[in-house]
Amino acid sequence: MGKYYKTTPWVIPELPQSLKNIFKKNGKKISIRKNQVISGNDETALFSNTEKLIYIDSGLLGQAYKTYCVNKPYAMSIVLPGRMVNYLHYLEIDNSGDIILALRKSDIFTMTKSQFDGITEKDLKDEMVRYCKKAVTSDFDAMCCMFTCDTPQRLAYFLKALAESFYDDISTMPLVEIPLKLSYAEMSYIMHTTIRTIERLLPKWRSMGYISTRRNSLIIYK
Amino acid sequence: MGKYYKTTPWVIPELPQSLKNIFKKNGKKISIRKNQVISGNDETALFSNTEKLIYIDSGLLGQAYKTYCVNKPYAMSIVLPGRMVNYLHYLEIDNSGDIILALRKSDIFTMTKSQFDGITEKDLKDEMVRYCKKAVTSDFDAMCCMFTCDTPQRLAYFLKALAESFYDDISTMPLVEIPLKLSYAEMSYIMHTTIRTIERLLPKWRSMGYISTRRNSLIIYK
Repeated sequence: MGKYYKTTPWVIPELPQSLKNIFKKNGKKISIRKNQVISGNDETALFSNTEKLIYIDSGLLGQAYKTYCVNKPYAMSIVLPGRMVNYLHYLEIDNSGDIILALRKSDIFTMTKSQFDGITEKDLKDEMVRYCKKAVTSDFDAMCCMFTCDTPQRLAYFLKALAESFYDDISTMPLVEIPLKLSYAEMSYIMHTTIRTIERLLPKWRSMGYISTRRNSLIIYK
Repeated sequence: MGKYYKTTPWVIPELPQSLKNIFKKNGKKISIRKNQVISGNDETALFSNTEKLIYIDSGLLGQAYKTYCVNKPYAMSIVLPGRMVNYLHYLEIDNSGDIILALRKSDIFTMTKSQFDGITEKDLKDEMVRYCKKAVTSDFDAMCCMFTCDTPQRLAYFLKALAESFYDDISTMPLVEIPLKLSYAEMSYIMHTTIRTIERLLPKWRSMGYISTRRNSLIIYK
């Protein structure tokens, strides 16, 4: 990834602190239970995708693209705390095919785009636009990976993207502990593959000494 | 596609006439030979991707994404006459992984972003931003198709996108003649599959009466 991608595919970048502060100070805080659909074209969703910008303060969200594929209706990327979603809406790019849901119990802060634009100075609005565009580039890279790499390659890229999302520079670290435990089912959604493929790959990598798992984390040996 | 996608995946939308006029009046006209790389990270390219906006007046361009995959290094979408590329650059989204090349002898008009912005009124700049965002949505849909559909589905979607790009409303047409002949190799790049797969599929569809081919066109029966 360091070699190929400038972004961390499947894991959008962190929001700058200045923008986080705006959400925490002015946004509406909502606690979301696991599996609740927060936003998007789903009858159980709290909001439409063009209604709210959503900042995640704690927990874990998933951003699922509708694929119109019978067997695998969604392709998912994950949203770690400190990120903002509905960036396509902020950029006024059509995002009606997305759904945002809580993969864990999460705390979010929401604001409308016009609320955000109304209270922020030009330099912070520019910062927001830059953030949203970086998130789009990350999505492009993830999609590119999705259709060009086989599942083991994709999974390796995804774990590297995760590692790079938690640490500034992993190049000198002999091992990286990712403080997040995803289920095999969640990984299969993110990789858009079957659970069986994940069940085959991860134990194999564990027995080969590439990874190990703890109660609440995953360790990657390099 | 009418059913699932609001865009025509793999085939970006046409530039509004008002914007075409700006390129034709103020742009620099260049004739490009087949296979010349026009723009992007390639040593034979005429320009970098952040140097020029490129309007295609006649011919056929290809927009190739670098995939970092050894066997299939590019995934391609086609650019029909009347379109403008380097829209990611206009939106200031990183597009360093793309290459734009001529698939046929083509005439293009080029301008820099600052040249375009310097001579156009706000409403036309807004029109340009809307155009570029629509092109991004088309790319998202194409990528989504690429990793979720099998090759026959992808190829059917692609032919439908082509048909919808040449005609305003194909819903009432018993057959659609696409005035463009793509080689099996070109189709394999666009579908990111092997030539063999295309060689297997298209003759089969022809014998089943779904399509027929003329010297310079492809006919789809519905």
